[in-house]
Amino acid sequence: MSEAKLTILKIGGSVITDKNGELSARTEVINRLAEEIQKANVKNLIIVHGGGSFGHPTAQKYGIKEGLREEAQKVGFAETHHVMTVLNGLVMDSLVWHNIPALSVTPSCCVVTEKGRIKHFEDSVLKMLLKMGFVPVLCGDATLDEKLGFTVLSGDQIVAYLARKFGAGNIVIGVDTDGLYDADPKVAKNAKLYAHLTLSELEKVKEKLGGSTAADVTGGMLGKIAELVPAVEQGIPVAIVNAAKPNRVYKALMGEAVEGTVIEKE
Amino acid sequence: MSEAKLTILKIGGSVITDKNGELSARTEVINRLAEEIQKANVKNLIIVHGGGSFGHPTAQKYGIKEGLREEAQKVGFAETHHVMTVLNGLVMDSLVWHNIPALSVTPSCCVVTEKGRIKHFEDSVLKMLLKMGFVPVLCGDATLDEKLGFTVLSGDQIVAYLARKFGAGNIVIGVDTDGLYDADPKVAKNAKLYAHLTLSELEKVKEKLGGSTAADVTGGMLGKIAELVPAVEQGIPVAIVNAAKPNRVYKALMGEAVEGTVIEKE
Repeated sequence: MSEAKLTILKIGGSVITDKNGELSARTEVINRLAEEIQKANVKNLIIVHGGGSFGHPTAQKYGIKEGLREEAQKVGFAETHHVMTVLNGLVMDSLVWHNIPALSVTPSCCVVTEKGRIKHFEDSVLKMLLKMGFVPVLCGDATLDEKLGFTVLSGDQIVAYLARKFGAGNIVIGVDTDGLYDADPKVAKNAKLYAHLTLSELEKVKEKLGGSTAADVTGGMLGKIAELVPAVEQGIPVAIVNAAKPNRVYKALMGEAVEGTVIEKE
Repeated sequence: MSEAKLTILKIGGSVITDKNGELSARTEVINRLAEEIQKANVKNLIIVHGGGSFGHPTAQKYGIKEGLREEAQKVGFAETHHVMTVLNGLVMDSLVWHNIPALSVTPSCCVVTEKGRIKHFEDSVLKMLLKMGFVPVLCGDATLDEKLGFTVLSGDQIVAYLARKFGAGNIVIGVDTDGLYDADPKVAKNAKLYAHLTLSELEKVKEKLGGSTAADVTGGMLGKIAELVPAVEQGIPVAIVNAAKPNRVYKALMGEAVEGTVIEKE
């Protein structure tokens, strides 16, 4: 592993796809983010992206998250994984086109879960890629599960898992709002943005946080926070920024001051 | 693993792409083959496909097979892997659309080679998929290499490796000629097709066999045969058929008589 501490960048599915559509990618946003990632040129970076209107509606249609109950779901499982690789392909296309040595590492090939939680993560290729200076790219995926047969693994769970396992220096979460608010800013006009929250402050305001309204089989904003807390507990700061707005992700990657919410242990 | 013996189907890159073009897929051939695979409905099947005009020209351009020598190749490695996932995506799209529970298993995520030969193959997901009745699909890929940094792994090497490791019952190799000839049938009009060859007969006629003329970084027909011999030595018959002609792959999968070359141990 190179000397710089690992940065993990999560790009929300709601940022790079239109969550109200189906299989509807925002390629102009994907290209802008690839440009910001190229410009930031972070050493030791892992990128993880969500499923948005690719993974979620397909997973929902076949009840993939709940596991294997009938034969007919098998093609649904195959389809869910396939549509995620299609979205991942669009992301990879843009990253490689921006001269970023990015390699997709497909979760369904190297992760097996147990009741939805990562149990085995075969990470030797991931480690070699980081050591060689590549940028591994993962995404939410349909994965095999030792108890359920199969399930859905969220990008957020992958982020927190890798951050803890590899002792990441920081996590940047790109979403489609400016950060965490004391009410849903899409509904409440005077919702107030939290610029900084410690874990104990987060605990107090948790139930106020606005949730995602579109189809999200992996739990929206509250699910996201719940996944990330164990990483913060380990001392890894999480910056939540609006990836739908230009330069927010760039600034967060550069460690510059940026509108958003930082969650820290204390 | 289910009771039926494993069948491994290789689909040559020259069948599903135009090897004289670049990134030029034959989607109508891919769709026909998906239909034949669906109709044959083989229990316990692994599919492996080659790179054709996707993997080979890109790998050649950056000298990926020869390994990492300079920084600039890293994006070339990323690009080679990416274009293979694009071709794989087209294959997966067609298989899933034909209701085949097919799951891509990306070699670069689970294989590490040493001087181009498979050294580690993390196959636990592959085994689970077979056991559950899924059809794992692999392809030639750009992979990490313990000595070279990275290299190119041919679909043929994957076929022979998996056939031996899982004790396959048979291997079907779909190419763009009718089988093995005593001269290159694309040049010599009166070239004679070998319908059946034992390993000792193969050894005698080897140098006559026609090679592939288009860009193939993994060795063309002779390279293919060399990879497959160790599987045949283990008693696994190999049927080489023309996948560019309708129903040849279907018949081979069904164990029916079909024009082509069968290679057997004795």
